[in-house]
Parts: sequence; C-alpha cells; structure tokens
Amino acid sequence: MALIVQKYGGTSVGTTERIVEVAVRIQQWRDKGHDLIVVVSAMSGETNRLIGLASELTRQPSGRELDVLLSTGEQVTIALLAMALMEKGYAAKSYTGSQVHILTDSAHNKARILDIDHRKIREDLAEGKVVIVAGFQGVDEAGNITTLGRGGSDTTAVALAAALKADECQIYTDVDGVYTTDPRVVPEARRLASITFEEMLEMASLGSKVLQIRAVEFAGKYNVPLRVLSSFEETGDGTLITTEEKNVESALISGIAFNRDEAQLTIAGVPDQPGVAHQILGPISAENIEVDMIVQNVGEDETTDFTFTIHRTDFPKAMEILQQTADKLGAKKVAGDDKIVKVSLVGVGMRSHAGIASKMFETLAKEGINILMISTSEIKVSVVIEEKYLELGVRALHSAFELETERA
Amino acid sequence: MALIVQKYGGTSVGTTERIVEVAVRIQQWRDKGHDLIVVVSAMSGETNRLIGLASELTRQPSGRELDVLLSTGEQVTIALLAMALMEKGYAAKSYTGSQVHILTDSAHNKARILDIDHRKIREDLAEGKVVIVAGFQGVDEAGNITTLGRGGSDTTAVALAAALKADECQIYTDVDGVYTTDPRVVPEARRLASITFEEMLEMASLGSKVLQIRAVEFAGKYNVPLRVLSSFEETGDGTLITTEEKNVESALISGIAFNRDEAQLTIAGVPDQPGVAHQILGPISAENIEVDMIVQNVGEDETTDFTFTIHRTDFPKAMEILQQTADKLGAKKVAGDDKIVKVSLVGVGMRSHAGIASKMFETLAKEGINILMISTSEIKVSVVIEEKYLELGVRALHSAFELETERA
Repeated sequence: MALIVQKYGGTSVGTTERIVEVAVRIQQWRDKGHDLIVVVSAMSGETNRLIGLASELTRQPSGRELDVLLSTGEQVTIALLAMALMEKGYAAKSYTGSQVHILTDSAHNKARILDIDHRKIREDLAEGKVVIVAGFQGVDEAGNITTLGRGGSDTTAVALAAALKADECQIYTDVDGVYTTDPRVVPEARRLASITFEEMLEMASLGSKVLQIRAVEFAGKYNVPLRVLSSFEETGDGTLITTEEKNVESALISGIAFNRDEAQLTIAGVPDQPGVAHQILGPISAENIEVDMIVQNVGEDETTDFTFTIHRTDFPKAMEILQQTADKLGAKKVAGDDKIVKVSLVGVGMRSHAGIASKMFETLAKEGINILMISTSEIKVSVVIEEKYLELGVRALHSAFELETERA
Repeated sequence: MALIVQKYGGTSVGTTERIVEVAVRIQQWRDKGHDLIVVVSAMSGETNRLIGLASELTRQPSGRELDVLLSTGEQVTIALLAMALMEKGYAAKSYTGSQVHILTDSAHNKARILDIDHRKIREDLAEGKVVIVAGFQGVDEAGNITTLGRGGSDTTAVALAAALKADECQIYTDVDGVYTTDPRVVPEARRLASITFEEMLEMASLGSKVLQIRAVEFAGKYNVPLRVLSSFEETGDGTLITTEEKNVESALISGIAFNRDEAQLTIAGVPDQPGVAHQILGPISAENIEVDMIVQNVGEDETTDFTFTIHRTDFPKAMEILQQTADKLGAKKVAGDDKIVKVSLVGVGMRSHAGIASKMFETLAKEGINILMISTSEIKVSVVIEEKYLELGVRALHSAFELETERA
C-alpha cells in the first residue's frame, strides 16, 4: 500500500483507445491496493491545434489568453480518463489546475508552482477514488489560469508527489527508461536501473530528452523518487532517479549524452584586456541567442582567441553579429562551423576517480577524432567534435567505459 | 453610452474568420462608447466532437466529468475572441464560468444559475476592457464545473444582463429576428420589430427555435430587454423582446408557430370515471414521454374518448403502452397518427379581442382542412391538422390575419 503519482504524456493519451489502455494500467496498480494520483497531458496534437487557431488570429497572443486556450487541452484528457475509469467500475474524480488550486506565480506560459492545496485530494483518496489532475496548468493569486510551459506536466506530477509526500512519482513515456546512450547510435546501449538526479540533469540538458529538466530539479530538491517507465510496453521497472546515496550503480560514468543541435563560432586575435568577453557575448545575448560552451585561449601578441557554441538555428544570425563585433574590436578573424556536435560523459563516479577525461581523450585520439573544444564540470566531461565522427566517437567511448555491462 | 451584453452562438464563432467578424462588430459598438460584455458559445461542431470522444469511452458519462469536458468548448472561444480584439488594439479580458463565479446548483448538464459575482466585471469595464465570458457554464458551491445544458449560453447572457442591470441583451444568431411565421413556408412572412416575452415563450415552445426558452423566461422575470439580431448580415435592429406595455405592435396576433414533431394518440370508449386520466397518462409519463396537448370528449354509454399528443419519436413506444392500458381498462379502441402537425396563433391581442379562434377555424374550413384537436390558452389558439395541409393552412392563416402588413 503506497501512495503513487503517475504521469502520462500526450502520446500515451493520444486517442480514446490509448486512454483506455492507461485506465487498464491504473486499474492494475489500484487492484494491488495503492492510492493513485494521475497527472495527464493534452492528447498529442491538441496543443498544436490550439496554437494553430491562435496563430490564425494574432502573431503575439496575450500570455494570459494563450493560457486560457491551452489549458483546455489537459482539461479534455482528465474528463475522458475519469470516464474511462468509471466505465470500468473504478471511482475517479478529475481536477483542473484551478480546482485543485495549484498556485503559481503570474508568469504566463512559464509559471512556477508555489503551493498546492491537497485537502480535496486527501479526501478523495480516503474515499478510494483515483484522483486525476490536469498537468501543465495552475492558477495565480488573482484567479488567472497559468501554464507551466511545454512539458510542464512532469513538473505538476513531481510537485504533487512532493506536496503529498508520495512514495514514488512514475513518469510514463514512450521510452522504457534512461539508457547509457541513444540505442539508435549504440545498439549495445543498456537501460540504467537507476541514476542520480544530478546525472539525470546533465543527461537531460545535453539532449537526452526523457524528462523535463525543471521536473528533475524539483524532484531532486524535494527528494521525490522519480521513475521513468514505458506506457506502451511491459518492460519491467524502468529507471529510478534518486539521490546518490542509495541504489545507484557504482560505475565511473553512467552514460554518454550528445547534442547535434550545436554550432561553434570563433573570434581570433582580439585584444586580451578586461571586458573583452562581455564585448563579444553581450551583443549575442542581446539577440536572445543562448550561449552554451565558452573557451578562451591565450593567443599571440597580447591577443586572445575566443570560441563558443550556440544552438544551430541561431548560427547565421550569430555569425553576422560576431563579424560586426570583430570589425569594432579590430579582431584578426571570425570563423564558424555548424557541423559540430557535443559529446559528454556523465557520472557521479567522476568525483572520486581521476583519469576519466584523459581516458576519454585517448579513446577519441585512437579513432583519429580531433577534439575542437573541451569543457568539464564535477560530474561531466564534454568535448566538441566534427559531426561526421559522432557515431564512431560515441560507440568507441561506450565500449571503452564498458557501459554495455551492468556493474554491481 | 449604454451597458450592453452581446451573445454570439456557435455558428457565429465557428471559424477564426468568423471570430474576426465578431471582433469587428464588437469594435463598432465599442467605438460608439458603449460598455460591452460578450458571451460566446463553443465553436460550432466542437461540442459534438467532445461528446463523440466521450461516447467512445462510455455510454453513460458521469455528469460531473461531462461538464469538465464540454466546458472546454467555450473556454477555447473566449480566449480566441480576446486575442482577436487585442490584435485590433482593443483591451479585452476573458473569463470562464468559474472565474467570474457564475454560481449554479449542482445539477450537472442542466444546472441553474443562482448568483453572479460581478465585481471583477465592473472593474474591467471601468478600465475600458471588453469583458468576454464563456457561455453555458458555471461552478457550484463545491467548486465543480457545471453546464446549463445545450443553448445555455443565451441564459448566461441574460443572467449577466440582469445581474449588471444592462441596458440591453443582444442575442446574435443566424436569423435576423423573429418572424410572423417561418419564411420558408410563407414567403411573405415579416420580421417583427417587437414581441412580448409571453408571445416569445409561446413561439419558442411551439417550434420557432430562435432563443432558448429558459433565457426568455429569465429575461421576462428580470425585465431584461432582449434583442435578436443576425450576426451575418447588417439587417437593422432585429426583433426586440420586451414587456407588453411598451413598444409592441397593436396587432391581434403576432405570429403563427407550428410544430411538425408531434404525433397523436386516441383511446376510445374508456369508463368515464374519476382517475381515468391518470390511469391513461401515468404509464406514459413513467417512460419519460412528454405529453403536449390533452383533450377529453364525452363519448356514448358512460364512456369517454381521450386524445393526446406527444413527440413523434416516442410514437411507437407510446402506442405500445397505450394498447396495454386499453386492455387493462377494457377500452373499445386505440388509434394513432404520426402524420399530424400543430399550428398555433400567438398574440397578446387575443386577450382583449374575441373571435380569433372562430376566424381561425373558418379560415381552415374554407381551405377544406379538417381540425383534429383544439387547445387554447390566454394568448394562443392551437389546432392539430393533417401534416399534408401544413403549408396550405399556415399560408391561409397568415393572409387572413394580414400578418404581412405592419400595424401601427
């Protein structure tokens, strides 16, 4: 008998047939005697349909009105899932974000949860009801409907689990867990039984898009055991995301993340003086271009070289801005490359083991792969390499660190 | 400078193009300096789409969950209309039934409005905002979403007009007013400049479906001037529905309503004794079949004949029940006819003028139309005739009472 929060994403509830499948899964847990709170997203395609309607009317919809519009997506799903459960003879009750009073700030389209009033939910659970809550949405102090931004249903689930001190928060998705790396690149990739919140954050932010980052942060902060499971297959226990102390494999590294969406820019021969970094990156940020890795090298003649990466779609714009900056600063050269990828080793084991980085560089060198940039943090090492070497590099690293083998 | 409540139905907001047209119309009123509260329905087809989803899951959806589902339809429209107005530079703000606290009882799918908290609306109007409210929906004391039943958006508009003491409640629809009779039957039918609430109720309940009956009752009770207008054409001032005292044409009758959806049943030769009416109609009502007209004639030999009309779809069922009753009571005969129609003259002028009924009978007789049943009330005379005579009868009556000519 545990209290479990389950979250089903848009694909899992994409049709009424799939909603019935979700109801069957909920039944199985309910029949084992567990108390269940179920968070659902909008049926897949619905959010895009609604955004399409808005875009027929205006280029810049009011944030408040967009939230009124988009929040209907999840509201449809909660009602349908409640009906499906009741049809099977199970007591169920649906709540919108407003109804269960998921209090957020007033930042429309990207609101943050401040508080949840869980009295109604406790009462319903005590009466044996399955409680179904609309993900992604809340209400601000003034009673305005807010949304948490795309993928925010994960955050709703974690917040409910934290508020109600649930035993586990299960995120059902279209993958059956977190893998050592993308199985489409490395067929030997292995599903991890567990991973720490910190590792998960690095994996997620590096492009292994399984969970929404904010949800993982939230779960880590409130120590909510989070489990990623497949809503389509019966493939066991998924991956448990938990604190470092318990249940985590004692491997040096947990996984290899990579990100194809990057581009690299270099400005060479700029005066090596205070404030130059800001002079280079200021105009880039002013255009809302997010900068990822930043490396500064010492150059010749009291000048320096400055290299950074950005999202690939921003490449042409960023090159243009950088050229203007170069002219202004009297830099020697501007260069750019949008055929690069970032590959990262992630693992809490790095903290206590030296030599991870050098083994990584050695492995890549053996394959003749040139490293263009390096960046490290406490639990990860990232390198930028040419895009054509992605598969070769990731497979070599996966094998060198023996990720296909489970550690005790 | 007046306070006006406008209501736009599903066809009027059926596409984003139409929503823009509604925004243009609102603009025109706003530019004249009026304060506006706008009530909208779900985009046409949306409610049926949602009901379709529910019916894929269950035959008998929970009333509470069905209301959660259906209320999303209007919520989509309010957001889109607010966006359309803001795009044109007009301040606007949308409210769901819950947000503006349209308090109802808890009768899901057919709730009644108890109270409206109009403070927020007053504040927004004072700030020059167009206030947009979702029709058809409310919230009960416990915070559950309720709906007023189909067509309930009219009621929302009237209730808001009553609560805020609006100068006029305008119902925009796909007809441009209330006609003396159906123009498809009588090409000379004329739009009425005004009609009383009582007449409108009789016209509506008799099959001239322009406004929801409950909305007219509500408007009459709270003396809210109600105007029916076309949302598609610029055809003038529509029809004003008002109290008898002012503005109403001094005609004997205002219009001719008819209803094709009726069937007639007769049980002949039943014992003429107390309680026989209940013995006959009790089993019919027990099956939720609504009885419309009832006529009892004195028959021969201390027996009586009993005739009544019902909705045509209930005809086979009602015949079956009536046959059982006949066997029980030892009646002589059961007869039925589902090829009949009811035609009614409606007008407050009848109160002060005798001879309306006899002129009606005379007109029909001249055309060789046999009257099967007669029923009268203070402001209407209804007859049942064979369906094949419908057009002939209505045209003859329209002409005999000179309805094509406007009265001073």
